[in-house]
Amino acid sequence: MKLEFRQYMAARREQVEAALDRYTAGLDAPPRLVEAMRYSLLAGGKRLRPILVIAASELFGLDAADVMPAACALEMIHTYSLIHDDLPCMDDDDLRRGRPTCHKVFGEAMAVLAGDALLTQAFVLMADQACVARVGPARAARATGELARAAGAAGMVGGQVEDLEWEGRRAGESQLRRIHSLKTGALFGAAVRMGGILAGAGEADVERLGRYAAHFGLAFQIWDDVLDVAGDAALTGKGVGRDARHEKSTYVSLHGLEGARERAHAAVREALKELEPFGQPAWVLRLLAESVVDRVA
Amino acid sequence: MKLEFRQYMAARREQVEAALDRYTAGLDAPPRLVEAMRYSLLAGGKRLRPILVIAASELFGLDAADVMPAACALEMIHTYSLIHDDLPCMDDDDLRRGRPTCHKVFGEAMAVLAGDALLTQAFVLMADQACVARVGPARAARATGELARAAGAAGMVGGQVEDLEWEGRRAGESQLRRIHSLKTGALFGAAVRMGGILAGAGEADVERLGRYAAHFGLAFQIWDDVLDVAGDAALTGKGVGRDARHEKSTYVSLHGLEGARERAHAAVREALKELEPFGQPAWVLRLLAESVVDRVA
Repeated sequence: MKLEFRQYMAARREQVEAALDRYTAGLDAPPRLVEAMRYSLLAGGKRLRPILVIAASELFGLDAADVMPAACALEMIHTYSLIHDDLPCMDDDDLRRGRPTCHKVFGEAMAVLAGDALLTQAFVLMADQACVARVGPARAARATGELARAAGAAGMVGGQVEDLEWEGRRAGESQLRRIHSLKTGALFGAAVRMGGILAGAGEADVERLGRYAAHFGLAFQIWDDVLDVAGDAALTGKGVGRDARHEKSTYVSLHGLEGARERAHAAVREALKELEPFGQPAWVLRLLAESVVDRVA
Repeated sequence: MKLEFRQYMAARREQVEAALDRYTAGLDAPPRLVEAMRYSLLAGGKRLRPILVIAASELFGLDAADVMPAACALEMIHTYSLIHDDLPCMDDDDLRRGRPTCHKVFGEAMAVLAGDALLTQAFVLMADQACVARVGPARAARATGELARAAGAAGMVGGQVEDLEWEGRRAGESQLRRIHSLKTGALFGAAVRMGGILAGAGEADVERLGRYAAHFGLAFQIWDDVLDVAGDAALTGKGVGRDARHEKSTYVSLHGLEGARERAHAAVREALKELEPFGQPAWVLRLLAESVVDRVA
């Protein structure tokens, strides 16, 4: 099963990379802008969010190709958020995945615009005529709404604002959970919900996928905090101990390393519980959740 | 007719302002973020773009209420672009419509995020279930694609990049046209095309509306250059002679004040020609084009 899962992930990741390349290579836009967009978009990464879209839609009978534009839209939004988060006026980061950040290479103005362009391009993809024709415009419109709500003021951007507002202060557990559920959880939720919606899943199943993603996102974030303390900088591509230096509350600062690890595992168990009604076909989503706490980077 | 037009514009503007207020007042998001979004969004302005959406859709039998989410989506995208353009790393402007710019009031990080949130919220509105139900999801999806393409790398953002790339150099007429057709023309085009598409206009009519908007946008931009030299700073809300100080090519620097004025009037005549087949019902679009070269601010 583990081998099959690794093969599945490698194949899907390759498909996603190829699609991201295809969707941006021929853009009728200033070359330097396209270069900046692609520099950040094609910088590797696990492609977790697009794979979540695909795995959720496969559970309800769609093929990866049917939802590829939506899957890539999500990755574009994730990438734009990293570019803007790294800006000097935000987190002021020089490195991302072991490479200079977008604004370090292309300048601040271009980084702002590359982020804006990626965010906008996500919605070009959501309106992709071939994809809309395949799943039907009603599902496409609903999925577009899911994505926009999760990415915007009531979701990811709102989480980033709350994160900034708590800078230099130690947030408590409930505040920390809230920030992360908005900042990273919202997009994970959108991923599986969009996959379900595009594939015509019923409302109860879409809700169930959303709850799976909430636990998944929590486990993911706790594990990020664990890796910040106990991870290998060469593998994570960022410095170790950054959170402590930034005086940020983390699950490790709140519960200690072992307490944080336990909580991550508990969140994974909750995620798995939500998948039970789907049975064997949910094997990818199951192993995806389990792999969150196997990560070393 | 002129009185009727002024009444029409005042009524539509009021409807748009009320809708922009309504669509953002209840946002479930950090209060300071909502405040920053609304500070820029509700700062007045002519609301030309949303009114173009409405007027184009009325031409094909829809009511303003039917397209209000799409009309406001366009204004949100226009507003986000102003917020990001004003940032220190871009045009570094302190004043906008006679008031301190968003980043001057809320700080740079919040201005970036308020812009991101407005851009994203535009697509929340495009996916608005009630609106999608009214015009049908197929038209809604097509209009969403129009908006995203016009706003993104191949449209407005691309234009902003080209504008930056020409900074400090004198662009020639064709380059100037290209920059403006992307930077401001694309959204005008999206406005009337979306109005037509949402109202079920045929392809030929949508194309015709797009050509109208291209001439309209050109006239608008030339007149902006005229006002920069000959306008009243108290009315335009920005300094006079800014373009010359920034060493930017303008239609006035290329053709002189009188030459620029003539070219603006010629562009308006071209816009009006495109409207002829629509006859009397296109009266609002006609007077809108004529009013471009009446503007004093």
